[in-house]
Amino acid sequence: MKIGILGTGAVGKTIGTRLVALGHEVKMGSRTAANEKAMEWVKTSGKNASTGTFADAASFGEIVFNCTKGEVALDALRLVGKENLKNKILIDVSNPLDFSKGFPPSLTVCNTDSMGEMIQREFPETKVVKSLNTMNCAIMLDPAKVAGDHSVFVSGNDKDAKEQVKKFLESCGWKGSNIYDLGDITSSRGVEQLLPFWVRMYGAFGHANFNFNIVK
Amino acid sequence: MKIGILGTGAVGKTIGTRLVALGHEVKMGSRTAANEKAMEWVKTSGKNASTGTFADAASFGEIVFNCTKGEVALDALRLVGKENLKNKILIDVSNPLDFSKGFPPSLTVCNTDSMGEMIQREFPETKVVKSLNTMNCAIMLDPAKVAGDHSVFVSGNDKDAKEQVKKFLESCGWKGSNIYDLGDITSSRGVEQLLPFWVRMYGAFGHANFNFNIVK
Repeated sequence: MKIGILGTGAVGKTIGTRLVALGHEVKMGSRTAANEKAMEWVKTSGKNASTGTFADAASFGEIVFNCTKGEVALDALRLVGKENLKNKILIDVSNPLDFSKGFPPSLTVCNTDSMGEMIQREFPETKVVKSLNTMNCAIMLDPAKVAGDHSVFVSGNDKDAKEQVKKFLESCGWKGSNIYDLGDITSSRGVEQLLPFWVRMYGAFGHANFNFNIVK
Repeated sequence: MKIGILGTGAVGKTIGTRLVALGHEVKMGSRTAANEKAMEWVKTSGKNASTGTFADAASFGEIVFNCTKGEVALDALRLVGKENLKNKILIDVSNPLDFSKGFPPSLTVCNTDSMGEMIQREFPETKVVKSLNTMNCAIMLDPAKVAGDHSVFVSGNDKDAKEQVKKFLESCGWKGSNIYDLGDITSSRGVEQLLPFWVRMYGAFGHANFNFNIVK
């Protein structure tokens, strides 16, 4: 599948590398087509990896991952432009973390709104599916990194888009029974507000190789 | 052990009944000594159950559970009075849920503050330990209600108090390896912000008999 990735940070690179390894064609987008980090990533990632602007990556992808940081996510998506995201599935893995007062971070938006909703509101013709933001990027598309059962969540207004994302997650190694549909895009509030908990578990463990499992 | 419970709702009654079954002496406190719900609970709970005012319950308990609703928790604790809570361990299981706009609720305080911190600030000589608020009350002191491993968290400024709470939780059936110390009382922000997620899982499942497990 052709996949666009917005963002050249650790999340974008880790997801991009994993997607190439799974046989997908991946275009990593950033503000400029000649972003150094993206070029470096392409060099080490083989013929199925390419780079371009945010707009290039989005128009290339059948699925687009938003891997930008929460604080710049909307700006980056504005650079993509509505037309390049129209009718596309945008998997939003961003978290609105506010590190301005150090660690642990708080959130720039929460409780009665969320990044997922802000993106969906501004791009009403895009099928925003919030997912994967509740774990370290190394685990997102490679769940075997953590032993045993653990959970991933999808939130979004478009049922078909959520079904496609679920199937895509399964193709990356997620067991169907570990994928939970939390409801419409307002349920992004739930998964984004897991982060203030996640960062404290991270602080307690001293590593990020853990995940939540829902036991019932 | 002598245990005081503040609050006569489902949480207080469920915890109280379980504690009596475990052999503890329990005094359930409310605004008035002759609270009907508390009297009814005492009637069906045997000789180790008693009732009284909030102040009676707090001064009776070697450990005190705050099982009042988040919206009235501080008012209830003010009725207890600082003297009756001085040097005591107060296990705060409350959640600052705001149902004013229906289900799912948002939070009345979050992100840069929490109920746990508000209580600790107002009662500086009380050893507030936030715990157990991340699951349904039926599971809190009876973890076998959910099969397999699942997790409980403690947050608080007093290390000895947290150790005592951990031992107490173990005496109620929690495996030591499933009890996580998240840090000082500011980590209440983490566990209280699990609630917007919890309520959506509850909505998705249609029941509350589930819990989080941390897998690493």
